[in-house]
Amino acid sequence: MAERRSWWGWGLEGQGPSRPQQEAIATGLAARFGREVTVADPARLEDLELPPPRIQAPESLAPLCSTGTYERAGHSYGRSYRDVVRGFRGQFDHPPDVVAFPADEAELASLLEWASDADVAVVPYGGGSSVVGGVECPADGHAGVLTVDLGRMDGLVELDRTSRAARIQAGILGPALEDRLRPHGLTLRHFPQSFEFSSLGGWLATRSGGHYATARTHIDDFVESMRVLTPAGAVESRRLPGSGAGPSPDRLFLGSEGILGVITEAWIRLQDRPRFRSSAAVRFERYSDAVAATRAVVQAGLQPANCRLLDEAEAASSAGSGGGVNLLVLGFESADHPVGGPMDRALEICAGHSGSAPDGVRSSGPEDGGGAQREGSVGAWRNAFIRAPYTRDALVAMAVIVETFETACTWDRFADLHAGVTQAVEKALVDICGGGLVTCRFTHVYPDGPAPYFSVLAPGRRGSEISQWDEIKAAASEAVMSNGGTITHHHAVGRDHRPWYDHQRPELFAEALRAAKAALDPAGVMNPGVLVEPRG
Amino acid sequence: MAERRSWWGWGLEGQGPSRPQQEAIATGLAARFGREVTVADPARLEDLELPPPRIQAPESLAPLCSTGTYERAGHSYGRSYRDVVRGFRGQFDHPPDVVAFPADEAELASLLEWASDADVAVVPYGGGSSVVGGVECPADGHAGVLTVDLGRMDGLVELDRTSRAARIQAGILGPALEDRLRPHGLTLRHFPQSFEFSSLGGWLATRSGGHYATARTHIDDFVESMRVLTPAGAVESRRLPGSGAGPSPDRLFLGSEGILGVITEAWIRLQDRPRFRSSAAVRFERYSDAVAATRAVVQAGLQPANCRLLDEAEAASSAGSGGGVNLLVLGFESADHPVGGPMDRALEICAGHSGSAPDGVRSSGPEDGGGAQREGSVGAWRNAFIRAPYTRDALVAMAVIVETFETACTWDRFADLHAGVTQAVEKALVDICGGGLVTCRFTHVYPDGPAPYFSVLAPGRRGSEISQWDEIKAAASEAVMSNGGTITHHHAVGRDHRPWYDHQRPELFAEALRAAKAALDPAGVMNPGVLVEPRG
Repeated sequence: MAERRSWWGWGLEGQGPSRPQQEAIATGLAARFGREVTVADPARLEDLELPPPRIQAPESLAPLCSTGTYERAGHSYGRSYRDVVRGFRGQFDHPPDVVAFPADEAELASLLEWASDADVAVVPYGGGSSVVGGVECPADGHAGVLTVDLGRMDGLVELDRTSRAARIQAGILGPALEDRLRPHGLTLRHFPQSFEFSSLGGWLATRSGGHYATARTHIDDFVESMRVLTPAGAVESRRLPGSGAGPSPDRLFLGSEGILGVITEAWIRLQDRPRFRSSAAVRFERYSDAVAATRAVVQAGLQPANCRLLDEAEAASSAGSGGGVNLLVLGFESADHPVGGPMDRALEICAGHSGSAPDGVRSSGPEDGGGAQREGSVGAWRNAFIRAPYTRDALVAMAVIVETFETACTWDRFADLHAGVTQAVEKALVDICGGGLVTCRFTHVYPDGPAPYFSVLAPGRRGSEISQWDEIKAAASEAVMSNGGTITHHHAVGRDHRPWYDHQRPELFAEALRAAKAALDPAGVMNPGVLVEPRG
Repeated sequence: MAERRSWWGWGLEGQGPSRPQQEAIATGLAARFGREVTVADPARLEDLELPPPRIQAPESLAPLCSTGTYERAGHSYGRSYRDVVRGFRGQFDHPPDVVAFPADEAELASLLEWASDADVAVVPYGGGSSVVGGVECPADGHAGVLTVDLGRMDGLVELDRTSRAARIQAGILGPALEDRLRPHGLTLRHFPQSFEFSSLGGWLATRSGGHYATARTHIDDFVESMRVLTPAGAVESRRLPGSGAGPSPDRLFLGSEGILGVITEAWIRLQDRPRFRSSAAVRFERYSDAVAATRAVVQAGLQPANCRLLDEAEAASSAGSGGGVNLLVLGFESADHPVGGPMDRALEICAGHSGSAPDGVRSSGPEDGGGAQREGSVGAWRNAFIRAPYTRDALVAMAVIVETFETACTWDRFADLHAGVTQAVEKALVDICGGGLVTCRFTHVYPDGPAPYFSVLAPGRRGSEISQWDEIKAAASEAVMSNGGTITHHHAVGRDHRPWYDHQRPELFAEALRAAKAALDPAGVMNPGVLVEPRG
């Protein structure tokens, strides 16, 4: 059973911190919070008593389907904090009745046909890493719920080296995708924190945020064409580098979160692997200087691949700055040419805003053999980054509240948004948890505004963690929205963001989307509860 | 009457070549084509006999409306070749019954309400520069046609210098827009050939192609948010630098060509005015080398602002190369830093593909006072570029067929597309006109493919020019489509591209778009015949 996916938490079973490591973390947190922190044990699979399946797949589809406890429990939730807490407790009130694993589009079409005919809700499932309730099963309104796991549709179908693009099936996970591209010297370079256990189809359905901090920030920008299987049939756009022929068909399905159909494959734009790199960490005493410098760098058109501004709290907690300093982490990269020029200019701009880089610039290129070495170092950071969810799960065992939320806003509103959100969350943490920490970094930056990403850490009350977090999240979301932010820059809407999304998106756009859904999903079975309610 | 817009041709009355200049052009073309070329006179406004208006605006709206011959004739067509030929002949079979000029959204809403109630087709009209029949009046199916000219809604409403963005009304034309931004040191830098007589709203509704040859090629990329007045009400998206909250509302309206509603204003991302420039013309003997070099430059991530590859025929006809050479015109620009580095690297790449730049590189920056001078030279080129439609109209008077078409395709398909399209059009020209010229240049270039733009020049038969061009266009479009291109990269679909667009866009996407249209335009009056037929 080694290498089996955890049915309640992140990633693979047995990959998180060991029990002694957990105890050490608990001791550290107890000192930090000034209260006792204990480590509990997760529920056991064999103790779970799931409600019996309400539906049964037709005989012809039975071989693709499972009603086993491990599969149903494992596909009940995404991997947000509230998901993992429920999984840890063994609380599975509304698991999918059936989990299907189609191997190809014909099998998928049969599943959608059955679901439409039998009023079975369909939840498309890629890697299962949603943090917004995107793969959670609706409690009622349908005869039952069928979760469709795309994991078997994971091939690289075609590769065009000349145009640097590949046709790839939606169910492929990040590492397998990069493994298939590596022999061709190509990469997608899409590294969300969920990289190891999120899929191409999931990235497309949720408009995932990727590797590049500037310019091409979302997976959207890398789509040449898509193929989507809807209950009404297949939709396939023409493979094109650019077009102006009517509203973009792809843009209707990018971010559609499974409510219109299942993305089955896409032609994706690829990159040559970077050979030149340059990185630096710039320190600022005042946050306002750091923000102004970041804005100036991106408005100068420099397009760093990495442009991560950590506020004082974030620099202390995640970069060990020792406090009193805001940190702008800059990185440039290229497969073709040295990137020292833009880095020098960026540092010059930062210096004009009282920013200094005491550790200097680390550059590497193929000629000094530094490429591989830097890849190693970047790889090490990336590994730590993508292993963070395991640590998060360990904190769940300690009843610690640990979650993130993110937004984007225009520069003119950012100072108020940062202050307003920080204040609102700090107040909520005091009121609800007796204290805690909220920190902020930029994940992506645009000429007209940043995408701030907030992290929260607080002592929870065992058994009440979810309602505690829900209150904190509501306070945070109110502050984000009233300060002109988006309810999500790259985490999607799902079911959890609905109240604020419903406020954000124009009502008549929702009406148009409902109408489009009614045309493509006449039975209204696709991922109900996400984005919009079907027409009554 | 000076400065009045021409009711049959491009731009302002009396701005084209003089009669002696026209006679000189005719003599030159006669020698080129080996046949007589004569100059005819356009129809006279006072001789036009338009069908009487079939509808009458309600009294309350009458002050906004005109039924004058000048207004109705002038709003009958866009400014494609077939439009100008018909205007020149005085052929106005289906003019709008009424032309309205709302001054604000309340007036516009009243017009849409009347139209929806009275089954009057509404044609939104910005600058009237469509080359695809986008503003042409449907012949039947409605009680009448109301063309809504947005020209009075042309204000700059709000400007955010920090985020470099402005809220601008849709009816503003290119030059007025730049005039309003100049005092703030900002520019949109969107210069389609129609710049002088096309509007922001028109650019948005048609996904216009702009100044930048790479990266941010369409107006789409500069939209922070939009406001659209539909018959069902207003749709306004939130102003954001980026978002991942569901399918993008703006992307439904970008390219919607007036079928969902009227774009009334948008928050648009702006640029600082460039101060550093570098340009060069690289010569290649073999076209395949030139194409490979262009691909390598853009795949290297260099992002030139100008990257125009002229094939041999185009280099001879529009750059006076003398023949035997393909020309890649490269330009880099920045408001912040010198651009010699990327230019040097681009030339190095070109040299690796047997390209040479015998005239060297022309660079300028603020320190050598060259900024203004280069702006002057670039300005001169731009003036010639945007005055070209006047010359086109003079050729119409000579019964010469002169038109362009454009597409985009992935690199792996380009060689076949270029050969196939050139061959198909050359054959059509011989068959239909006894000869003529077809040339190709790239207007925009992507890492995964170019956007080729073809120009056609041939002797027409007076009275048959339109059917002759329609045959040539059909042959060209068939070749574009069968070689994997898009029917339009930035000229839009309108009514003229419908047969090929209907083939290109996935049928179920059209179904979704029809459904969205039915939700926003329940009476089905918005720009009928464009993009999709309303639901029956």
